Amino acid sequence: MPIAVPALLAHPKFAAAAAYLEGAHDRLIEEIIQLTEIPAPPFKEERRAAAFLEMMRPAGFADAKLDAIGNVVALRKGRSGGGMIVLSAHLDTVFPEGTDVSVRREGTKLFAPGIGDDTRGLAALLAFARALDAAAIETEADLLFVADVGEEGRGDLRGIRHLFTEGEFRDRITGFFTFDSPDMDELVVTAVGSRRYHVVFRGPGGHSFSAFGTVNPAYALAETVLGLSRMSVSSETRTTFSASVLGGGTSINAIPEEVFVDVDLRSISPEDLARIDTELHRLVDTAVANENARGSTESGAITAEAVLIGDRPAGATPRDSLIVTASAEALAAFGFEVGFRASSTDANIPMSLGVPAVMIGTGGKGGRAHTLAEWIDVEPETSLRGLKAGLAAFLGVVGLCD
Amino acid sequence: MPIAVPALLAHPKFAAAAAYLEGAHDRLIEEIIQLTEIPAPPFKEERRAAAFLEMMRPAGFADAKLDAIGNVVALRKGRSGGGMIVLSAHLDTVFPEGTDVSVRREGTKLFAPGIGDDTRGLAALLAFARALDAAAIETEADLLFVADVGEEGRGDLRGIRHLFTEGEFRDRITGFFTFDSPDMDELVVTAVGSRRYHVVFRGPGGHSFSAFGTVNPAYALAETVLGLSRMSVSSETRTTFSASVLGGGTSINAIPEEVFVDVDLRSISPEDLARIDTELHRLVDTAVANENARGSTESGAITAEAVLIGDRPAGATPRDSLIVTASAEALAAFGFEVGFRASSTDANIPMSLGVPAVMIGTGGKGGRAHTLAEWIDVEPETSLRGLKAGLAAFLGVVGLCD
Repeated sequence: MPIAVPALLAHPKFAAAAAYLEGAHDRLIEEIIQLTEIPAPPFKEERRAAAFLEMMRPAGFADAKLDAIGNVVALRKGRSGGGMIVLSAHLDTVFPEGTDVSVRREGTKLFAPGIGDDTRGLAALLAFARALDAAAIETEADLLFVADVGEEGRGDLRGIRHLFTEGEFRDRITGFFTFDSPDMDELVVTAVGSRRYHVVFRGPGGHSFSAFGTVNPAYALAETVLGLSRMSVSSETRTTFSASVLGGGTSINAIPEEVFVDVDLRSISPEDLARIDTELHRLVDTAVANENARGSTESGAITAEAVLIGDRPAGATPRDSLIVTASAEALAAFGFEVGFRASSTDANIPMSLGVPAVMIGTGGKGGRAHTLAEWIDVEPETSLRGLKAGLAAFLGVVGLCD
Repeated sequence: MPIAVPALLAHPKFAAAAAYLEGAHDRLIEEIIQLTEIPAPPFKEERRAAAFLEMMRPAGFADAKLDAIGNVVALRKGRSGGGMIVLSAHLDTVFPEGTDVSVRREGTKLFAPGIGDDTRGLAALLAFARALDAAAIETEADLLFVADVGEEGRGDLRGIRHLFTEGEFRDRITGFFTFDSPDMDELVVTAVGSRRYHVVFRGPGGHSFSAFGTVNPAYALAETVLGLSRMSVSSETRTTFSASVLGGGTSINAIPEEVFVDVDLRSISPEDLARIDTELHRLVDTAVANENARGSTESGAITAEAVLIGDRPAGATPRDSLIVTASAEALAAFGFEVGFRASSTDANIPMSLGVPAVMIGTGGKGGRAHTLAEWIDVEPETSLRGLKAGLAAFLGVVGLCD
C-alpha cells in the first residue's frame, strides 16, 4: 500500500532518512564534483557509468550492473514484489569530448558544464539509496535505481527506451521518476513528442550559367521550408515546427548537387505530431515534383530523403494518478509552489507507454544549463529541502512498510 | 606584323611546333594529371601555382615569377616589343579543400574535379611554351604566359583584374587569350556580366519549442529563393539566376539567428542584369516583410543584408577584330565549326576595358564541369587538333618572324 504524504512525513523512518540526508550533505557535494569531473559526452558515458556503478555497490547494491545499452541498474527489492518504481537520473551531458569539466567553486555556487543537468541527479540517487539503508526503510514495491545514457539531443532517450522495450525489467515497471535538474518548482507531467529530420535534396548540379534551366535542389528545399512556415498548428496541443539548420552547395557558380534542412517537429499530442509529420513528407514530395516539372531533368532529377534523426514519443501522466498527486503534495509540503509543465525528458518513454511518470527536480538552484557557464547553488537549506521533497515524493508512491 | 592564318599553316616553323605537340602528347596527359592532383580550391591556389612555376622555368622561363596577387607570369620577348599578347589559363577550381582530386582513367577518358576546367588549360600553356622553343619560333609581339588565380566564383576574376589594373604589364597588353575548358567549337567573344550576392537573413533566434511563433529567418530565405526560381528571364540575353550555396543555424532545437544564400545573377545585357538585380532585392524585402507579419517580432524582427560578393563587367570583342578573325580562321582550318559564344571568363576584364580578348578551348572533349563527375577525353586526334588550332590562333595574332 502506498502511504499518504502527511502520514509519511510524520513517520519516524522518514525522519531518520531525512536526518541522514542532512548529515550527508557534504558528501553529496563531493560526489557531485567527483561525477561532474568525469566527462560524459553524448554516446560516451562509459567512464561516468563505471564510476557510478562502483559508488552504488557499497551502498547496498552488490548486484548493481550495466545493462546492454550502458545504463547502470540497481534493484532494491520491496516486501510485496508487486510493483517496481524507477528512480532515474541521466549520465550524459550535451558537452562534446574535450570540454573542460573541472568544477569551480565560489561559496555555495559550483560552476561546471553538466553539473546541474544532470550530475546533481546522479549524486541524489546515491544519497537516496544510502538514506533508505540508514533509516532501515523497507518499501512495499521494488525500487529500481537507474543511471541512464542518451537523454540529451541525438541520444534520443535511448537509455530509457531500452529499459522499457528490451531491458530485463521492461514488463515489471509500474512507475517512473526522473530526477533531472535542480529546479523544484515545476513537475513535468506531459511529454512533448518530437520527430526530427535531416532532409536532403539532391540533383544533378551543373554550371550556374551554362546549365541554367537544370533543376536546382535549393528550390525544392525553399518550397518545402516555405510550406512548413505556413502549416497550421494548434497552440492547445503545443504543436510546433522549426527549420533549424540549412546547408549545402559548393560554389556561387554551381547549381548545388545537394542541400539540406534540419527540421524539428513537436507536439504534446501524438495525433498532431503524426499529422505534421505526414504534412512535412507531403511538402517534400510536392516540392520535389514541382521542381522536376519546372526545370530540366535532362542530367538527372531532384530527389529527396528525409532521414529521421530524432523520435521522442508524446504522452502524459494523468493529473489524478498517484505519482502526480504524491509528488505535488510532497513538493507543497516542503514549501515549493508546484507548476505542471510539458517537456521532453526521459519520462517521455514511460508516459507514451502508459506507465505513470514524472520529471521532478534534484534540489538546490541552478542555471545556464546547456552552456559552458552552467552552475548550481548547494546552499544547504534549499538543497536539502529539495532532496527531502524528492524522498517524500517517491516514498509516497512506493510505500513504506512499518 | 601578324601573319595570315593560311600563310602561318604553311610555314615550316608552324609545322615544327605542331610536330612537337604531337610528340609531347603523352607528356601533356601526364602534366594534366599531375596538376589536377594538386588541389587548387578558391583562394588556395598557392600549391598549384608553385608547381606550375617550377614547370615553366625549365621551359625557357628562368624569370617566371609570382605576381603580387598570386598569378604565375612568364614573359617571352618578341622581336618588336611593340605589343604584348597574353596566353592565360586559370589555376583555381570550384572545389573546396578536402575534395578528392585523384584522377581515374578509363581508356582515353580521365575523371577528376577540375580536370577540364581548367587544368588542361595549364598543361596546354606548358606545351605551347615548349613547342615555340622546339620550333625556334621568334614572335613579333611579346607573349605573356599567365596562370592566374581567382577565375571561379568568389575569386571574382581577381587574378586577371590585378593583371590589368595593378600588374607590371597592365599598360602594355594589346590582346588576351584565355584557354579555358576543352571544347573548341565555341569562341567566347562576349562577356557575360554577373552580380553575385551573399544574402544574409537575421532574426532573434530562440528555442524551437518554447519560443515557437518567433520569426524565423529561414522562412524569409525560403520565400526569397522560391521567388527567385519563378523569375521570368530572357533566353535571348542569356539572363540566368542560381541559388547556389545555403547555410546557417546552429542546432536542431534552435530557431536560427542567421541563415544565408549565395545567389548568382548573369546576363549579356546590362539592362536585364540590372532588372533581375532589382527583382532580387525586391524579393528579399517582400520575404522579410512577410515573415515579420507572419511571426512574432517580440524578441526582434527579421532583417536581411545582400552583400555584393561578385561584380563582373559585361563587354565584347568586335567580330572584325584580328583576335576574333584569326581565332575563327584557325579553328575552321582545323575542322571546327565555330560558334560565337557569350560567357563569364577571365576575358571579361580585358573586354570591359576595350582590350581585344577571346576565350578559346584547350582541345579534346569534356563534360560535367563544376561537378564531382567532371571528365575529359584525351583521344589524341581530337586533342591534338584542338591544341594546334589554339597554337595557330595565337600565332596568327602575335606574328611569326622569319
